[in-house]
Amino acid sequence: MKVSELGEFGLIDLLAKMVNFAQDKQIAPSQQPIIGIGDDAAAWHGDASTQLATVDSFIQGVHFSLDVTPWKELGWKALAINLSDIAAMGGVPKYALISLALPDHTEVDNVTALYQGMIELAQQFGVAIVGGDTSSSPFVAINITVFGSARNKDKPILTRSGAKVGDKVAVTGYLGAATAGWEMLTKGLQFDPEATACLKRAFLHPYPRIAEGQLLVDQGVKTAIDISDGLISDLNHICKASQVSARIEVDRVPIQPTVKTNFSARALELALSGGEDYELLFTASTEVIDKISATAPCPVTVIGEIVADKAGKITLVDSNGNPFNLSKRGWEHFTSR
Amino acid sequence: MKVSELGEFGLIDLLAKMVNFAQDKQIAPSQQPIIGIGDDAAAWHGDASTQLATVDSFIQGVHFSLDVTPWKELGWKALAINLSDIAAMGGVPKYALISLALPDHTEVDNVTALYQGMIELAQQFGVAIVGGDTSSSPFVAINITVFGSARNKDKPILTRSGAKVGDKVAVTGYLGAATAGWEMLTKGLQFDPEATACLKRAFLHPYPRIAEGQLLVDQGVKTAIDISDGLISDLNHICKASQVSARIEVDRVPIQPTVKTNFSARALELALSGGEDYELLFTASTEVIDKISATAPCPVTVIGEIVADKAGKITLVDSNGNPFNLSKRGWEHFTSR
Repeated sequence: MKVSELGEFGLIDLLAKMVNFAQDKQIAPSQQPIIGIGDDAAAWHGDASTQLATVDSFIQGVHFSLDVTPWKELGWKALAINLSDIAAMGGVPKYALISLALPDHTEVDNVTALYQGMIELAQQFGVAIVGGDTSSSPFVAINITVFGSARNKDKPILTRSGAKVGDKVAVTGYLGAATAGWEMLTKGLQFDPEATACLKRAFLHPYPRIAEGQLLVDQGVKTAIDISDGLISDLNHICKASQVSARIEVDRVPIQPTVKTNFSARALELALSGGEDYELLFTASTEVIDKISATAPCPVTVIGEIVADKAGKITLVDSNGNPFNLSKRGWEHFTSR
Repeated sequence: MKVSELGEFGLIDLLAKMVNFAQDKQIAPSQQPIIGIGDDAAAWHGDASTQLATVDSFIQGVHFSLDVTPWKELGWKALAINLSDIAAMGGVPKYALISLALPDHTEVDNVTALYQGMIELAQQFGVAIVGGDTSSSPFVAINITVFGSARNKDKPILTRSGAKVGDKVAVTGYLGAATAGWEMLTKGLQFDPEATACLKRAFLHPYPRIAEGQLLVDQGVKTAIDISDGLISDLNHICKASQVSARIEVDRVPIQPTVKTNFSARALELALSGGEDYELLFTASTEVIDKISATAPCPVTVIGEIVADKAGKITLVDSNGNPFNLSKRGWEHFTSR
């Protein structure tokens, strides 16, 4: 069987089973991870607080194209997606290792621009770049590992597996703009200057929700994920890990206003499945979400609720509670991810 | 300027300067790394002991070929080169994150074989595989991050920058067999079965010198590196970081016996510049090295000494102390690395 037939998530499940089976008895209890393969970041017991680590690949032609992504923005974004994983655990990012594979003919100025983008973001969050690896490659591949921790010993972390039946599903910020920006840049779509700048920024300059992730922990939230694959796909990860299902009222999904205006017919699809918005998707009681809304530096919107069905199914409904059918093609795309 | 003109080490120096300049005042003193960019691993202050982290890329067509490296051995080796970096710091490896980029048509059985190789090595050193990342790519790229620590609060770590004038230069084990194995496999060279097995093992199954690295720390060694690029190139890293030079007696270099027998004319060149042997190269007083030799589980050989010249020059001499000229071409290859 090819990996394309098994799919990314099927492959991860298989490898996680192999690793867990092998490690169950071989690794000392004190060194067993708190969170192993299958969450936004790995977590283990440090001497004084829970330690977090996450890695993401960012590969030319797969995750980005140099045609639409300038080098400095590439550096920013490659680090941002990792910081976002730490945000999704409610942690504090601290150290980064940068592994860079580059074609021999790469201009040094482009590499320094890439680093400038990473450094600017790292400084905003007090993250120290402490090492890495540089190698030759037929195309650009950036692999960043970020190491962080829970804020202190008594602070828990957010995982994908704590969603409870009756929890509301909520999301920070607005959705759809990153993929809309990608479509604009790759298809050469023309919008007014303000919309152009907004969509470009959403796609090239995601801002990891570090402060918001920590606020969720402070308010007692247990379950979160960052939206990298798309709202439905990422909610699916929570549901599978928590052995629950979810019902989403599509009219409540906070579509980014510029996307609503400029992509009218497709705006909802972009918000539901676009991905790369790096907002936080979480579940909690209404009471907890109200407290978070009151203090969060960004909008927080309830979009649905967790329901009792271990199959990990996402149901879309309209404001009357009737089933909402996204185009067959769109839906299959979600489930196939 | 292209990165090929600046060279790998020139590029690393440039990026390290950028990062250090930016971080010098922006990162809190308590979070400043102990070792940043430019050693085998990064190091920072943990709550109770020094924390270590290292990352290495292993890219198809650059670092390995699937024509000569079976998948299981690929997994072993990709993890081994990272554990070797922790060995070179005298640390204890603890957790690994595996980032895997694969073509869609990759056989799932090959991926599980790759993981089997990693798991077997991880278990030998009590390392827990705790997470990672899987993505599609035109070719195989394996990026592994290993986290570890000094054994306890009072134990220092080994760096590249502590070599002192008068120190002897010593190396664990034997050299040259990994590159000899690579030549045998890629050029289809024929040897007797025992030699074939020995060279194949050296190239495909390097064994990280974790115990030996910790022994060096215990005996008071300050300076070490693992031999990945080649003896001369890696000794050069120590000399540059320590602002000293070194004189090597070529007749004392411990050439792997099978290499000596089967690659007679080129055996010394393979041992001096072959690389990938993952032995530890270190500097210390004769007294300290004698103590290490007495207890190390492998041979330890003195091959030269550190001399006073800040230029970071490696001089090769014969047993009479006369300059030894390796072929001009070989020497240029070394200095160009």
